[in-house]
Amino acid sequence: MGAIDDLVAELARLPGIGHKTAQRLTFHLLQQPRERAERLAATLGAVATRVHPCPECGTFTEDARCTVCDDPRRDATLLCVVEEASAVPVVERATGFRGRYLVLGGRLSPLEGVGPEQLRMALLRRRVASGEVREVILATNPSLEGEATATYIHQLLDGTGVKVTRLARGLPVGGDLEYIDGVTLSHALDARQEVP
Amino acid sequence: MGAIDDLVAELARLPGIGHKTAQRLTFHLLQQPRERAERLAATLGAVATRVHPCPECGTFTEDARCTVCDDPRRDATLLCVVEEASAVPVVERATGFRGRYLVLGGRLSPLEGVGPEQLRMALLRRRVASGEVREVILATNPSLEGEATATYIHQLLDGTGVKVTRLARGLPVGGDLEYIDGVTLSHALDARQEVP
Repeated sequence: MGAIDDLVAELARLPGIGHKTAQRLTFHLLQQPRERAERLAATLGAVATRVHPCPECGTFTEDARCTVCDDPRRDATLLCVVEEASAVPVVERATGFRGRYLVLGGRLSPLEGVGPEQLRMALLRRRVASGEVREVILATNPSLEGEATATYIHQLLDGTGVKVTRLARGLPVGGDLEYIDGVTLSHALDARQEVP
Repeated sequence: MGAIDDLVAELARLPGIGHKTAQRLTFHLLQQPRERAERLAATLGAVATRVHPCPECGTFTEDARCTVCDDPRRDATLLCVVEEASAVPVVERATGFRGRYLVLGGRLSPLEGVGPEQLRMALLRRRVASGEVREVILATNPSLEGEATATYIHQLLDGTGVKVTRLARGLPVGGDLEYIDGVTLSHALDARQEVP
């Protein structure tokens, strides 16, 4: 059963999916019309070949620029800095934010060998140096590494004259932005505070 | 974000995977090297195009016959009847069963419109009519529909001279008497065995 075992093994490599779940998913797909698995394969292939980071913000996009960067009505003076691209749709859905984004592509983590060079700090500086940005909103995760990353960026932007704010405390410490309910996130955005 | 949304939607159609998990899996794949998603797409495609039910037992296979049906050392006089193909590897791993299988492809369920014609009852009759089978082991699930399916097969094979057995009902090993449902406990009491 080569192909079946291969699929189980590939699925089991996904986060939160163990061997038993992978097996269950595989047999589920086998019991569906063949088109289901083919469509899933096609969408995966499309994502793998067509999706790339937006050169201006780092969000994933299929186009030359992402929909936010491409929208002239978005407020270019507000720049929301997030760790991962997955946080962008979360902020978009949960809040009324109409500014732009910058996706760092991770967080500072010396233990995992992630320094400023591994993140989009140069892009952030370029965006700020362009003079358009008036306020940088730090929306890194409320974790130890997220806080360290926010502190680093605050120091990085020191002297640029740009206002640096961060999402209000109230986010549960140790939480992950992706799993926070929209109301809390909206409150946190509204009550964002200037870094002293 | 067409391709990304498509993938989230496809993944969210899988059992036990909601929208948030689908989104998390999608972004996980986007953060991996492109080859990961491509390999997953390829294995899915291989399963969709190469895997089909074994004509002799209904298990999924890539070959003309499945490995069990193709193995001359397996005892053809013992036929283990299961509802789904996913049960075959479970029985194989957990037990020392050396007979053959018949996968019904479901269970009798009038409410869901599943009658004997929707299952591999004709194949079961052909296997029994061949004269090779001496014992049919009913390994349908211990659910209402599984029991009804077992009863139907028992009647179907009445008069063929073939011995019909079913998996013992009783206490699950490692279980706690306090948490076992009354029906199981009644079965366990009725089927109590003398301590040798």
